[in-house]
Amino acid sequence: MIGIDWGTSSLRAYRVDEQGDCTDKRDAALGIMQVGKDTSFPAALESVVGDWLAAGETQIIMSGMIGSRQGWLEVPYVQCPVTEREISEGRREVTWSGLRATIVPGLACRGPSGVVDVMRGEETQIIGAMPGLGDGEHLVCLPGTHSKWLVLRNRRFVSFTTHMTGELYALLKQHSILGRLMTDAAAPATQLNEYFDKGVERAREPGGLLHHLFGVRAEGLFGKLPHEAASDYLSGLLIGHEIVSVQPPARIIIPLLGAAALTARYVRALTDLGYRPRTLDEDCAMRGLYRLCTGKGTRI
Amino acid sequence: MIGIDWGTSSLRAYRVDEQGDCTDKRDAALGIMQVGKDTSFPAALESVVGDWLAAGETQIIMSGMIGSRQGWLEVPYVQCPVTEREISEGRREVTWSGLRATIVPGLACRGPSGVVDVMRGEETQIIGAMPGLGDGEHLVCLPGTHSKWLVLRNRRFVSFTTHMTGELYALLKQHSILGRLMTDAAAPATQLNEYFDKGVERAREPGGLLHHLFGVRAEGLFGKLPHEAASDYLSGLLIGHEIVSVQPPARIIIPLLGAAALTARYVRALTDLGYRPRTLDEDCAMRGLYRLCTGKGTRI
Repeated sequence: MIGIDWGTSSLRAYRVDEQGDCTDKRDAALGIMQVGKDTSFPAALESVVGDWLAAGETQIIMSGMIGSRQGWLEVPYVQCPVTEREISEGRREVTWSGLRATIVPGLACRGPSGVVDVMRGEETQIIGAMPGLGDGEHLVCLPGTHSKWLVLRNRRFVSFTTHMTGELYALLKQHSILGRLMTDAAAPATQLNEYFDKGVERAREPGGLLHHLFGVRAEGLFGKLPHEAASDYLSGLLIGHEIVSVQPPARIIIPLLGAAALTARYVRALTDLGYRPRTLDEDCAMRGLYRLCTGKGTRI
Repeated sequence: MIGIDWGTSSLRAYRVDEQGDCTDKRDAALGIMQVGKDTSFPAALESVVGDWLAAGETQIIMSGMIGSRQGWLEVPYVQCPVTEREISEGRREVTWSGLRATIVPGLACRGPSGVVDVMRGEETQIIGAMPGLGDGEHLVCLPGTHSKWLVLRNRRFVSFTTHMTGELYALLKQHSILGRLMTDAAAPATQLNEYFDKGVERAREPGGLLHHLFGVRAEGLFGKLPHEAASDYLSGLLIGHEIVSVQPPARIIIPLLGAAALTARYVRALTDLGYRPRTLDEDCAMRGLYRLCTGKGTRI
């Protein structure tokens, strides 16, 4: 089978054999925002995995923004609480040139006060992580441009919230008065420093995010925050605010699912705040696509 | 005397006679960011008020970012708690072509956990508002790109906090995924609508600002927030978060000092949240400059 994790800015393709082993993997900067304009979605797909299709693969499954209004076909959201089976049943089919593929639906969730939230793509990663998580209750964190926190109870998707942490970090660095202080890219995750921790620590204090943000500038003016450390402090401050807002119960284990560099920041912030982070395998999207396509688990 | 309120992006000049009446007023897009590069500060000043100087005005006082590191002369911050007299004593003199002017210092303040905060220019506006405020304790709000909340006790500047509310609103509108939803400029202050109030209301709920921001998008996707109302909702959400973070005691009177259109938004948000806003006169900068220069009050 072929599994496609097709997001806003990139497309990831996996070829998986009947034993559930991933035999090939490709990455292209062909997100749905790049496609829509000049190329069609079928053409974009064939440009990446045309040889796999020519070799006779007929089972194709896609997840992510490809199922959004701006994607190939708008697949209606399924509403939380929801099971893996209900997500699978929410798939819709597209056909082209004698081929067919299914697209996984996203999830919608209504918060306590009725405000809605949405995800597309993360549900598939979580399905891929399900065997590793097991039964019981889990609060899973998926760091990203728009981070997700999901409550899973006995493999049921109960509810989730999205946080604009990653996007706000990029915006503030590139366009705000705070960015002018920042002389350097953030430190690599492996070199996270005490300024990151200070940002996390600051997030626990009263005053609110809007006030804490201005502190990045004021502390810089007084030489208390070196320019090369300001982006690390900001990163810690924002991630800290995200975690504090979610209010996870004290000392719980928090499974993390996402790209390694960003996940390492969440591991550090969660540890600073007294939680026990647990990093899950990065190939969850592939595993989730395979599970939804075949009903079977992949080999781990 | 001549009073100059010289900020990052604009210069406001007031000519005031011996009775404290403002006889002329000018506004130029000659903020310190525009100046530094091509022109000198003396040349910029003379381009705006050269005729007043030629007419023999010799008492000149300036406040705002002109006293910052990027300004004409860096005037050291005075540290809260501080009195009007101590601010006046913190002035520094600049001289050029046989003329002299004094520059008002900014204020610095250390929060409960030692994090520093700063203002330049607002202290002069508050000094101008002092006679209208009177003795006792006041929590004064100055809406702006970087809003300030100041605690005054018996005319003493006790402490303050800054909030990046205005800058973040502009950033999110111009550069974020939320801005893509917004088809229109925010409604004029006089037409503030129920979506602004919904944003304020949302700010009282748990979940945190980073999560509430994503709600602007999700509600838009579900047609619950019309595109033309999204920027009003965002404005209410951010101003609401600012007020909620400050945690003013229930039902107090909150004096407001700032530009009319923005202040009207704060009046509405404060009213939504059960406070009693009180708008102060907009000419406080002029009054403050006059008081600091002459030790006398202006006529009201």
